[in-house]
Amino acid sequence: MGRELMNNISVDCVVFGFDSEQLKVLLVERTMNEANSDKILFTDLTLTGYHIYKDEELDEAAARIVFDLTGLNNLVLEQFYTFGALDRLEHPNDQLWLEQFGDVFSKRVVTVGYYSLLPSTEVPVIQKGRKVAWYPVNEVRNLAYDHEQILKKALEHLRYKVRHEPIGFELLPVKFTLTQMQKLYEAILGTQFDKRNFRKKVSQMNYVVPLKEKQIGVAHKPAQLFMFSRDVYDKTHKERFDFFI
Amino acid sequence: MGRELMNNISVDCVVFGFDSEQLKVLLVERTMNEANSDKILFTDLTLTGYHIYKDEELDEAAARIVFDLTGLNNLVLEQFYTFGALDRLEHPNDQLWLEQFGDVFSKRVVTVGYYSLLPSTEVPVIQKGRKVAWYPVNEVRNLAYDHEQILKKALEHLRYKVRHEPIGFELLPVKFTLTQMQKLYEAILGTQFDKRNFRKKVSQMNYVVPLKEKQIGVAHKPAQLFMFSRDVYDKTHKERFDFFI
Repeated sequence: MGRELMNNISVDCVVFGFDSEQLKVLLVERTMNEANSDKILFTDLTLTGYHIYKDEELDEAAARIVFDLTGLNNLVLEQFYTFGALDRLEHPNDQLWLEQFGDVFSKRVVTVGYYSLLPSTEVPVIQKGRKVAWYPVNEVRNLAYDHEQILKKALEHLRYKVRHEPIGFELLPVKFTLTQMQKLYEAILGTQFDKRNFRKKVSQMNYVVPLKEKQIGVAHKPAQLFMFSRDVYDKTHKERFDFFI
Repeated sequence: MGRELMNNISVDCVVFGFDSEQLKVLLVERTMNEANSDKILFTDLTLTGYHIYKDEELDEAAARIVFDLTGLNNLVLEQFYTFGALDRLEHPNDQLWLEQFGDVFSKRVVTVGYYSLLPSTEVPVIQKGRKVAWYPVNEVRNLAYDHEQILKKALEHLRYKVRHEPIGFELLPVKFTLTQMQKLYEAILGTQFDKRNFRKKVSQMNYVVPLKEKQIGVAHKPAQLFMFSRDVYDKTHKERFDFFI
């Protein structure tokens, strides 16, 4: 007796990573073969998602689903929005894909969206029969189901958060250069900053702490390293009302 | 043939209102009688919520549910979080209440939370067989199901938003006094501001526009009226990164 799935409730996870140049997202390849044949009918990409079990909390489901598809463990997964559009599974490819499972899944599935920020795209991605890989967020096209919409909403959420909280540091290595930090913010916000202005602003952030260390093993002149101090941020910003500025 | 309900997916709406003194929430009385008797087994309160129809979008369901219970129309309802804890319907009162509907509803229900901000608690609340009324958020106790948790999360969400966006004005009349504005922010944030400091800060907000009008029909010395300008706010804040301050 296996655990029973909820046939009409799923979880989809948008796992973001930053590789020092581009904001990326973890996607799973979905390949549909013709019945009893090697002929490929279509190949596309999905977010890391699946149905939840009847005896499983939503947060648990999110963690289990990412782990099952990638082997990634202990991610911080945060719920950001729930998607229930009536036509979200209606593309012919989606219908074809779902038909192979018979009546296991409902025709109307509501999916709870989670997102996660990984500090590196160098993580070991286990591939359990499915190809899982990182794709630049900017270049993602033709995702399955409504996953483009889910990705777009996750990105909006990330942009909102990043404008109001120092959440971006979760995508950087513990010790980072200001160039890495600028590239990260440019990648998330889809904008470009003037280098001098950016550095001037950062120098006013007492929670971005300069270290007495420089990069090692780089071809160019090694840049100074910085760390983000959650402690300093919390102590100086807790009672602040951005709105009142 | 009526429309079919989703037996395991519902929507719960947290409708906030401000009556110039207190932050309030719209709640529905739930009274359980003994079978074939007038004897009341228990009375408690729920948020405005219900199951969604199989052919209904989530946003549509939220609007329909609030309208059905209150007659309120054209509310701006915003999704904020989805709740699916395994024990969310497990209180004996909830079990007793749900038993009367037989197998209509599942034992595991995932509910999508929405919230809305009303500028007045003077709105006509139609009572379709159920008592619907405003309760001060601070004094709410013993809600049905996990509705206390949903209310708490909605309040957290509102506090977060109000610190980062001028969303509070949606709870004030179009023309308001600075005393009303201060009381609103104190009510939402559960804090007290020094009157002089508060006014000094407001005077720096170019989007809180002083009018050449004063209160009318008040016993005390009439205070000056203000309006919030979304236009001015958008034009001066759109490209701002609070995070960088």
